[in-house]
Amino acid sequence: MDKLSTDLAGLYRAYIACLNQQDWPRLGQFVADDAIHNGRRIGLSGYRAMLERDFADIPDLLFGIQMLITDPPYIASRLGFDCRPKGVFLGLTIGGKRVSFTENVFYEYRGAKIREVWSVIDKAAIEAQL
Amino acid sequence: MDKLSTDLAGLYRAYIACLNQQDWPRLGQFVADDAIHNGRRIGLSGYRAMLERDFADIPDLLFGIQMLITDPPYIASRLGFDCRPKGVFLGLTIGGKRVSFTENVFYEYRGAKIREVWSVIDKAAIEAQL
Repeated sequence: MDKLSTDLAGLYRAYIACLNQQDWPRLGQFVADDAIHNGRRIGLSGYRAMLERDFADIPDLLFGIQMLITDPPYIASRLGFDCRPKGVFLGLTIGGKRVSFTENVFYEYRGAKIREVWSVIDKAAIEAQL
Repeated sequence: MDKLSTDLAGLYRAYIACLNQQDWPRLGQFVADDAIHNGRRIGLSGYRAMLERDFADIPDLLFGIQMLITDPPYIASRLGFDCRPKGVFLGLTIGGKRVSFTENVFYEYRGAKIREVWSVIDKAAIEAQL
Protein backbone atom coordinates (compact mmCIF):
# COMPACT_ATOMS: atom_id res chain seq x y z
CA MET A 1 0.00 0.00 0.00
CA ASP A 2 1.30 3.47 -0.81
CA LYS A 3 1.24 6.28 1.72
CA LEU A 4 -2.04 7.82 0.55
CA SER A 5 -3.80 4.47 0.89
CA THR A 6 -2.34 3.93 4.34
CA ASP A 7 -3.50 7.38 5.45
CA LEU A 8 -7.01 6.81 4.12
CA ALA A 9 -7.26 3.37 5.74
CA GLY A 10 -6.14 4.87 9.06
CA LEU A 11 -8.69 7.68 8.78
CA TYR A 12 -11.41 5.17 7.99
CA ARG A 13 -10.53 2.98 10.99
CA ALA A 14 -10.65 6.08 13.21
CA TYR A 15 -14.10 6.90 11.75
CA ILE A 16 -15.38 3.40 12.60
CA ALA A 17 -13.92 3.69 16.13
CA CYS A 18 -15.77 7.02 16.47
CA LEU A 19 -19.05 5.30 15.54
CA ASN A 20 -18.48 2.42 17.95
CA GLN A 21 -17.75 4.91 20.74
CA GLN A 22 -20.85 6.91 19.72
CA ASP A 23 -18.59 9.94 20.00
CA TRP A 24 -20.93 12.22 18.00
CA PRO A 25 -19.16 15.53 18.73
CA ARG A 26 -16.15 14.08 16.90
CA LEU A 27 -18.11 12.85 13.84
CA GLY A 28 -17.44 16.13 12.01
CA GLN A 29 -13.74 15.23 11.87
CA PHE A 30 -14.64 12.35 9.57
CA VAL A 31 -17.79 13.36 7.67
CA ALA A 32 -18.17 16.40 5.39
CA ASP A 33 -20.79 19.07 6.16
CA ASP A 34 -22.51 18.35 2.83
CA ALA A 35 -22.28 14.53 2.94
CA ILE A 36 -24.46 12.46 0.62
CA HIS A 37 -25.75 9.01 1.70
CA ASN A 38 -27.31 6.71 -0.90
CA GLY A 39 -28.13 9.63 -3.15
CA ARG A 40 -29.60 11.88 -0.43
CA ARG A 41 -27.72 15.02 0.67
CA ILE A 42 -28.25 14.55 4.41
CA GLY A 43 -25.22 16.56 5.53
CA LEU A 44 -23.29 16.04 8.74
CA SER A 45 -26.37 16.67 10.93
CA GLY A 46 -28.49 14.17 8.99
CA TYR A 47 -25.63 11.66 9.06
CA ARG A 48 -25.37 11.98 12.82
CA ALA A 49 -29.16 11.69 13.23
CA MET A 50 -29.12 8.51 11.10
CA LEU A 51 -26.42 6.93 13.26
CA GLU A 52 -28.08 7.96 16.52
CA ARG A 53 -31.29 6.36 15.27
CA ASP A 54 -29.38 3.18 14.37
CA PHE A 55 -27.95 2.94 17.91
CA ALA A 56 -31.38 3.68 19.43
CA ASP A 57 -32.91 0.86 17.35
CA ILE A 58 -29.96 -1.49 17.94
CA PRO A 59 -28.51 -0.86 21.44
CA ASP A 60 -25.72 -3.45 21.00
CA LEU A 61 -24.71 -2.19 17.52
CA LEU A 62 -21.00 -2.58 16.75
CA PHE A 63 -19.32 -1.95 13.40
CA GLY A 64 -16.70 -4.58 12.51
CA ILE A 65 -14.46 -4.14 9.47
CA GLN A 66 -14.15 -7.50 7.67
CA MET A 67 -12.49 -6.25 4.51
CA LEU A 68 -11.04 -2.88 3.49
CA ILE A 69 -10.17 -1.96 -0.08
CA THR A 70 -8.39 1.36 -0.51
CA ASP A 71 -8.01 3.24 -3.78
CA PRO A 72 -7.82 6.98 -2.93
CA PRO A 73 -10.10 8.93 -2.88
CA TYR A 74 -12.27 5.78 -2.65
CA ILE A 75 -12.64 3.15 0.04
CA ALA A 76 -14.76 0.00 -0.07
CA SER A 77 -15.48 -1.74 3.19
CA ARG A 78 -17.26 -4.93 4.12
CA LEU A 79 -18.77 -4.45 7.55
CA GLY A 80 -20.02 -7.26 9.74
CA PHE A 81 -22.76 -6.99 12.38
CA ASP A 82 -23.93 -9.39 15.07
CA CYS A 83 -26.64 -7.68 17.08
CA ARG A 84 -30.23 -7.65 18.37
CA PRO A 85 -32.37 -4.91 16.79
CA LYS A 86 -35.13 -4.05 19.30
CA GLY A 87 -38.11 -3.74 17.01
CA VAL A 88 -38.38 -3.20 13.26
CA PHE A 89 -35.20 -2.95 11.18
CA LEU A 90 -35.18 -2.49 7.38
CA GLY A 91 -38.92 -3.12 7.47
CA LEU A 92 -38.42 -6.49 9.17
CA THR A 93 -39.83 -7.27 12.60
CA ILE A 94 -36.81 -8.46 14.56
CA GLY A 95 -38.07 -7.96 18.13
CA GLY A 96 -34.72 -8.41 19.86
CA LYS A 97 -33.69 -11.59 18.01
CA ARG A 98 -29.95 -11.88 17.43
CA VAL A 99 -29.02 -11.58 13.74
CA SER A 100 -25.74 -11.57 11.81
CA PHE A 101 -25.40 -9.69 8.55
CA THR A 102 -23.02 -7.70 6.41
CA GLU A 103 -22.95 -4.36 4.63
CA ASN A 104 -20.88 -3.70 1.52
CA VAL A 105 -20.25 0.04 1.45
CA PHE A 106 -18.31 2.44 -0.75
CA TYR A 107 -17.06 5.87 0.31
CA GLU A 108 -15.66 8.81 -1.59
CA TYR A 109 -13.37 11.05 0.42
CA ARG A 110 -12.71 14.74 -0.14
CA GLY A 111 -9.48 15.39 1.72
CA ALA A 112 -9.82 13.77 5.14
CA LYS A 113 -13.63 13.60 5.16
CA ILE A 114 -16.31 11.31 3.76
CA ARG A 115 -18.17 13.14 1.01
CA GLU A 116 -20.42 10.41 -0.38
CA VAL A 117 -21.55 6.93 0.68
CA TRP A 118 -23.09 4.08 -1.34
CA SER A 119 -24.26 1.39 1.08
CA VAL A 120 -26.00 -1.94 0.56
CA ILE A 121 -27.06 -4.04 3.58
CA ASP A 122 -27.65 -7.77 3.12
CA LYS A 123 -31.35 -7.76 3.97
CA ALA A 124 -31.87 -11.23 2.45
CA ALA A 125 -29.40 -12.66 4.98
CA ILE A 126 -31.43 -11.18 7.86
CA GLU A 127 -34.70 -12.52 6.42
CA ALA A 128 -33.17 -16.00 6.26
CA GLN A 129 -32.55 -15.83 10.04
CA LEU A 130 -36.11 -14.85 11.02
CA MET B 1 -3.21 3.74 -10.57
CA ASP B 2 -0.14 1.53 -10.64
CA LYS B 3 0.36 -1.16 -13.25
CA LEU B 4 -1.01 -4.03 -11.15
CA SER B 5 -4.22 -2.09 -10.49
CA THR B 6 -4.59 -1.22 -14.17
CA ASP B 7 -4.13 -4.88 -15.14
CA LEU B 8 -6.68 -6.05 -12.61
CA ALA B 9 -9.22 -3.40 -13.65
CA GLY B 10 -8.76 -4.46 -17.29
CA LEU B 11 -9.23 -8.13 -16.41
CA TYR B 12 -12.35 -7.28 -14.45
CA ARG B 13 -13.84 -5.26 -17.31
CA ALA B 14 -13.16 -8.21 -19.65
CA TYR B 15 -14.92 -10.51 -17.16
CA ILE B 16 -18.00 -8.25 -17.12
CA ALA B 17 -17.98 -8.12 -20.95
CA CYS B 18 -17.85 -11.95 -20.95
CA LEU B 19 -20.96 -12.05 -18.74
CA ASN B 20 -22.83 -9.55 -20.88
CA GLN B 21 -21.99 -11.60 -23.98
CA GLN B 22 -23.03 -14.78 -22.14
CA ASP B 23 -19.81 -16.24 -23.50
CA TRP B 24 -19.78 -19.17 -21.06
CA PRO B 25 -16.96 -21.16 -22.69
CA ARG B 26 -14.69 -18.20 -21.93
CA LEU B 27 -15.76 -17.86 -18.26
CA GLY B 28 -12.91 -20.13 -17.13
CA GLN B 29 -10.42 -17.45 -18.23
CA PHE B 30 -11.77 -15.22 -15.48
CA VAL B 31 -13.04 -17.48 -12.70
CA ALA B 32 -10.98 -20.05 -10.76
CA ASP B 33 -11.95 -23.73 -10.80
CA ASP B 34 -12.46 -23.66 -7.03
CA ALA B 35 -14.26 -20.31 -6.83
CA ILE B 36 -16.21 -19.40 -3.68
CA HIS B 37 -19.35 -17.23 -3.87
CA ASN B 38 -20.83 -15.78 -0.67
CA GLY B 39 -19.18 -18.46 1.43
CA ARG B 40 -20.14 -21.42 -0.80
CA ARG B 41 -17.47 -23.25 -2.81
CA ILE B 42 -19.46 -23.51 -6.05
CA GLY B 43 -16.45 -23.79 -8.36
CA LEU B 44 -16.37 -22.69 -11.99
CA SER B 45 -19.23 -25.01 -12.99
CA GLY B 46 -21.47 -23.77 -10.18
CA TYR B 47 -20.53 -20.19 -11.00
CA ARG B 48 -21.52 -20.71 -14.64
CA ALA B 49 -24.78 -22.42 -13.63
CA MET B 50 -25.61 -19.47 -11.34
CA LEU B 51 -25.06 -16.97 -14.15
CA GLU B 52 -27.01 -19.03 -16.70
CA ARG B 53 -29.90 -19.17 -14.21
CA ASP B 54 -29.69 -15.39 -13.74
CA PHE B 55 -29.96 -14.81 -17.51
CA ALA B 56 -32.83 -17.35 -17.77
CA ASP B 57 -34.71 -15.51 -15.00
CA ILE B 58 -33.81 -12.06 -16.37
CA PRO B 59 -33.61 -12.21 -20.20
CA ASP B 60 -32.58 -8.53 -20.52
CA LEU B 61 -29.91 -8.73 -17.79
CA LEU B 62 -26.93 -6.44 -18.36
CA PHE B 63 -24.09 -5.78 -15.91
CA GLY B 64 -23.07 -2.11 -15.74
CA ILE B 65 -20.01 -1.02 -13.77
CA GLN B 66 -20.84 2.18 -11.87
CA MET B 67 -17.77 2.27 -9.66
CA LEU B 68 -14.57 0.26 -9.56
CA ILE B 69 -12.12 0.27 -6.66
CA THR B 70 -8.89 -1.60 -7.23
CA ASP B 71 -6.45 -2.69 -4.53
CA PRO B 72 -4.71 -5.88 -5.77
CA PRO B 73 -5.53 -8.70 -5.20
CA TYR B 74 -8.91 -7.15 -4.31
CA ILE B 75 -11.51 -5.36 -6.41
CA ALA B 76 -14.72 -3.75 -5.24
CA SER B 77 -17.34 -2.97 -7.83
CA ARG B 78 -20.69 -1.24 -7.72
CA LEU B 79 -22.84 -2.78 -10.42
CA GLY B 80 -26.04 -1.22 -11.73
CA PHE B 81 -28.99 -3.12 -13.21
CA ASP B 82 -32.09 -1.92 -15.04
CA CYS B 83 -34.05 -4.99 -16.13
CA ARG B 84 -37.29 -6.98 -16.05
CA PRO B 85 -37.04 -10.24 -14.09
CA LYS B 86 -39.65 -12.64 -15.52
CA GLY B 87 -41.00 -14.22 -12.36
CA VAL B 88 -39.61 -14.41 -8.83
CA PHE B 89 -36.24 -12.79 -8.06
CA LEU B 90 -34.64 -12.79 -4.59
CA GLY B 91 -37.92 -14.17 -3.29
CA LEU B 92 -39.85 -11.20 -4.68
CA THR B 93 -42.59 -11.60 -7.29
CA ILE B 94 -41.52 -9.24 -10.06
CA GLY B 95 -43.50 -10.69 -12.98
CA GLY B 96 -41.76 -8.76 -15.74
CA LYS B 97 -41.89 -5.33 -14.06
CA ARG B 98 -38.91 -3.12 -14.82
CA VAL B 99 -36.71 -2.54 -11.78
CA SER B 100 -33.45 -0.68 -11.14
CA PHE B 101 -31.07 -1.77 -8.44
CA THR B 102 -27.43 -2.04 -7.50
CA GLU B 103 -25.04 -4.67 -6.22
CA ASN B 104 -21.96 -3.87 -4.13
CA VAL B 105 -19.56 -6.73 -4.69
CA PHE B 106 -16.01 -7.58 -3.58
CA TYR B 107 -13.66 -9.97 -5.37
CA GLU B 108 -10.39 -11.56 -4.39
CA TYR B 109 -8.17 -12.53 -7.31
CA ARG B 110 -5.57 -15.27 -7.42
CA GLY B 111 -3.37 -14.38 -10.36
CA ALA B 112 -5.71 -13.53 -13.25
CA LYS B 113 -8.77 -15.32 -11.88
CA ILE B 114 -11.52 -14.59 -9.39
CA ARG B 115 -11.08 -16.81 -6.37
CA GLU B 116 -13.72 -15.49 -3.99
CA VAL B 117 -16.77 -13.20 -4.21
CA TRP B 118 -18.70 -11.36 -1.50
CA SER B 119 -21.85 -9.90 -3.04
CA VAL B 120 -24.74 -7.87 -1.61
CA ILE B 121 -27.71 -6.94 -3.81
CA ASP B 122 -29.91 -4.02 -2.79
CA LYS B 123 -33.12 -5.99 -2.27
CA ALA B 124 -34.74 -3.14 -0.32
CA ALA B 125 -34.43 -0.91 -3.40
CA ILE B 126 -36.30 -3.49 -5.49
CA GLU B 127 -39.03 -3.87 -2.86
CA ALA B 128 -39.53 -0.11 -2.89
CA GLN B 129 -40.31 -0.31 -6.64
CA LEU B 130 -42.95 -3.07 -6.37
